[in-house]
Amino acid sequence: MGFDLLKGKKGIIFGALNDMSIAWKIAERAHEEGATFTLSNTPVACRMGEVIELGKKCNAEIIPADATSVADLENVFQKSMEVLGGKVDFVLHSIGMSLNVRKKRVYHDLDYNYLNKTLDISAISFHKMLQVAFKMDAINEWGSVLGLSYVAAQRTFYGYNDMADAKSLLESIGRSFGYIYGRERKVRINTVSQSPTVTTAGSGVKGIDGLIDFSDRMSPLGNADAQDCADYCITLFSDMTRKVTMQNLYHDGGFSNVGMSLRAMTQYNKSFDIDDLDSKY
Amino acid sequence: MGFDLLKGKKGIIFGALNDMSIAWKIAERAHEEGATFTLSNTPVACRMGEVIELGKKCNAEIIPADATSVADLENVFQKSMEVLGGKVDFVLHSIGMSLNVRKKRVYHDLDYNYLNKTLDISAISFHKMLQVAFKMDAINEWGSVLGLSYVAAQRTFYGYNDMADAKSLLESIGRSFGYIYGRERKVRINTVSQSPTVTTAGSGVKGIDGLIDFSDRMSPLGNADAQDCADYCITLFSDMTRKVTMQNLYHDGGFSNVGMSLRAMTQYNKSFDIDDLDSKY
Amino acid sequence: MGFDLLKGKKGIIFGALNDMSIAWKIAERAHEEGATFTLSNTPVACRMGEVIELGKKCNAEIIPADATSVADLENVFQKSMEVLGGKVDFVLHSIGMSLNVRKKRVYHDLDYNYLNKTLDISAISFHKMLQVAFKMDAINEWGSVLGLSYVAAQRTFYGYNDMADAKSLLESIGRSFGYIYGRERKVRINTVSQSPTVTTAGSGVKGIDGLIDFSDRMSPLGNADAQDCADYCITLFSDMTRKVTMQNLYHDGGFSNVGMSLRAMTQYNKSFDIDDLDSKY
Amino acid sequence: MGFDLLKGKKGIIFGALNDMSIAWKIAERAHEEGATFTLSNTPVACRMGEVIELGKKCNAEIIPADATSVADLENVFQKSMEVLGGKVDFVLHSIGMSLNVRKKRVYHDLDYNYLNKTLDISAISFHKMLQVAFKMDAINEWGSVLGLSYVAAQRTFYGYNDMADAKSLLESIGRSFGYIYGRERKVRINTVSQSPTVTTAGSGVKGIDGLIDFSDRMSPLGNADAQDCADYCITLFSDMTRKVTMQNLYHDGGFSNVGMSLRAMTQYNKSFDIDDLDSKY
Repeated sequence: MGFDLLKGKKGIIFGALNDMSIAWKIAERAHEEGATFTLSNTPVACRMGEVIELGKKCNAEIIPADATSVADLENVFQKSMEVLGGKVDFVLHSIGMSLNVRKKRVYHDLDYNYLNKTLDISAISFHKMLQVAFKMDAINEWGSVLGLSYVAAQRTFYGYNDMADAKSLLESIGRSFGYIYGRERKVRINTVSQSPTVTTAGSGVKGIDGLIDFSDRMSPLGNADAQDCADYCITLFSDMTRKVTMQNLYHDGGFSNVGMSLRAMTQYNKSFDIDDLDSKY
Repeated sequence: MGFDLLKGKKGIIFGALNDMSIAWKIAERAHEEGATFTLSNTPVACRMGEVIELGKKCNAEIIPADATSVADLENVFQKSMEVLGGKVDFVLHSIGMSLNVRKKRVYHDLDYNYLNKTLDISAISFHKMLQVAFKMDAINEWGSVLGLSYVAAQRTFYGYNDMADAKSLLESIGRSFGYIYGRERKVRINTVSQSPTVTTAGSGVKGIDGLIDFSDRMSPLGNADAQDCADYCITLFSDMTRKVTMQNLYHDGGFSNVGMSLRAMTQYNKSFDIDDLDSKY
Repeated sequence: MGFDLLKGKKGIIFGALNDMSIAWKIAERAHEEGATFTLSNTPVACRMGEVIELGKKCNAEIIPADATSVADLENVFQKSMEVLGGKVDFVLHSIGMSLNVRKKRVYHDLDYNYLNKTLDISAISFHKMLQVAFKMDAINEWGSVLGLSYVAAQRTFYGYNDMADAKSLLESIGRSFGYIYGRERKVRINTVSQSPTVTTAGSGVKGIDGLIDFSDRMSPLGNADAQDCADYCITLFSDMTRKVTMQNLYHDGGFSNVGMSLRAMTQYNKSFDIDDLDSKY
Repeated sequence: MGFDLLKGKKGIIFGALNDMSIAWKIAERAHEEGATFTLSNTPVACRMGEVIELGKKCNAEIIPADATSVADLENVFQKSMEVLGGKVDFVLHSIGMSLNVRKKRVYHDLDYNYLNKTLDISAISFHKMLQVAFKMDAINEWGSVLGLSYVAAQRTFYGYNDMADAKSLLESIGRSFGYIYGRERKVRINTVSQSPTVTTAGSGVKGIDGLIDFSDRMSPLGNADAQDCADYCITLFSDMTRKVTMQNLYHDGGFSNVGMSLRAMTQYNKSFDIDDLDSKY
């Protein structure tokens, strides 16, 4: 039911956890589009039944790795090339986690060890992945690498905490390494800035429900969901987008370029009726 | 009560209409800071008692002009140089008007004659002003020119209509001419992107009250008002900012870089209580 | 040889002039991908043998139109729907022209009648096209509209003149109307900011050769050419990118996010050897 | 010889090393403008004769600190409040260092321990400084905090290496904490993105001379120097800019918004004469 857009292409997908994950949807779509690939996630995640099932469904080997470990990443690229029979054409980085968010440390009371972990897991792992791939020469010419980001890298969202800084760093690494990898090997690197998406990872962020509603009403096409994102990422892995690099690409139903929409303003204005009611009683 | 930041400086201020105008506040502050200047506005506006009063208060000659007329602008610069005794050091462009907004033509039903006027009055007048000044060599080296803009140039705001496009064009003209005027005469050109401000001009925009409330709650420092803006513009006319050029400078209490604030989200979330009430009764 | 990405889709392509045109390449690729479409250009262009040949090759009717004329645009959409048997799914706007550039009027000596024409032809025509389509309800849900732009909309390029302002206006119109069309009809509107491309239209810009060389050395993947652009636009017309809207998408080999590259710097540094030679003799 | 713009204001200036430092120039100008302040730098730097001399000249106590140490920063704020007799009104963060740059580790062969240090020293120190100040409530309402940045945070510059990522992170921290500090205490936080400046810190970056030349020719007003930057920062510490927050402000003679200038293109084009010569002999 696909277009064979990735026919013959090989890849590595990091970060599929369950069927709410964007990486999961991308794996499914990449499979439909004719790609072969490996899946990687933390050792704990790789033992989960769902990930094993995804592997079977997509005929994809699962290779556990701590994405902050250079040795583990070397192993992923090495094994992937063995399993897939050669260099890869695409890599997805869909990894992010903040202990400060999890442990409810607000942004003006960060634990700096947690912050270091946030940055290491959510952003520096992208550099490690790219440096490992570069040194092993593991990506084919005109290959494509994507990281998943969020508009909090540009604008502050209450409660998104140190993940905002991690996303800024991630996008910067995409640009910086995109320059090098493009120049030296004709590999492109981009980040996709996705609508807030209900995933296991996203669900820890404070006040996420109201934000998702607001985001949806602000976006003329509504929030993009994980399935939409998968479609989009497929085009970015395909040969049809070979000159797009070093970009942060908003996939968000228009949210990023809306200052105020009719739908969101209408909803917002209702709040004053409550204020009126409150002031009367 | 000022700092003498503009002592000895000469200028032209376009667009002061009444004491709600940003240009009005800038005129008052420029006067306090030791500048001498002329005021310009449309012939109709110039006959208004308030503008005449401002002229007296600031000891400023009033020179009527249709800012879309090159001849009128030549007259303003010529007369200003005569009155002030030499070339000017600063120019303020605070001019904007949309007949589509006034006549309630929505953005997908624009009258194109009105659109041409919107662009001519609100944006191209900035180019005309600069080209006239350039040809007459009417601005001193290290002079400073400012246009007033709004974040709608970057992000769509429901109801702001074709003024959004006019502001984009205005900012582009600021950059394009800023390059030329900087290179050739060391004159800097910038635009200030101001919080939504309750002025006579702003009051025609649809749903402006709710937007101003939202904007205020989104901005960690609250909306910047006309008085704040005047202070900021004084620094940009002063010799302390001589290497800032071709920029669009947000003066908005932080609004432009906030995706969602605690205060705005809290207010927004109240709206669901109304929805709950509605669904119950 | 395509992927059937546009199978069953109908469209209108404005601006194919000859086989150097980006619009020409897009027409060829859209044809390969299974789309049916009409071609439109000025009456003069439509009588040229090459355009007629493209029409035959793609089995596309040619409908002459002055893109600044609402009546002509209505005719294009009306005829297209008749010919294609229903509403369209995609529209390409690849139209731009500056009489100031052609007549060698520099940016600080613009002819304002020419400027009005530049804006009308290169930017306002985009609004007219969208407004006509909107009123006629001529675009299917989840349709896609693209305008072609250039990074001069964000940064000043010596010699690009008033086309920079036109591109800023074009991109703003894309955002503004993208909000409306998305909200009301689920149609997406984006602009593609393309590398400088050797086309008939581009060849009038001053110093274009040196700029194209610089741009190529700055871009880690080199300049994107018209063929690359066509591939990219196909993905944006396809159903794989349905939640991308109101964006300006750089398709430029990375240029937009490079401040200085090794290759460009190396070339630049050679210039000092000439200066050294000059100073010696 | 100042305007008394900072009369009565108290501050802390981090990062003055010698009279080439931007922080040094800012200290001198702040002194002229009537501020009292303390100076902080690493223990090694604080023992240098020049820093001691600056302290004497500005009547400023010198408080050594490792800016990555929360305890040291607490000490700086504590001592500063004692010495200055109360909370401070402004803070300058002018701190950056990359061991990868120093040790000539290129961006695709980073040492990750070095990278962690780069981020900690150049960016996370900004968060630590702000968090310490926030917890100690050490900054007065309407206070102003500045960090120094560079356009490499947005666009890749060959050789700037992991400092680009550090600057992106720094700017993100400025935004994120600017939101909190503005909301809670009405303190504003901005970063100034300065022209490449010949300082001791900047001199390690590869190919800096050619880049400074290019940057100068690209900028219509030429590169901004340390003295210009000091003037600008004074306005941002003053009460005239109280509603500017969460911004990254380019102070660069226009560089950031120029794609190609006449001067840079002319110089660049000379390089082809060398190529011609080379091809002849």
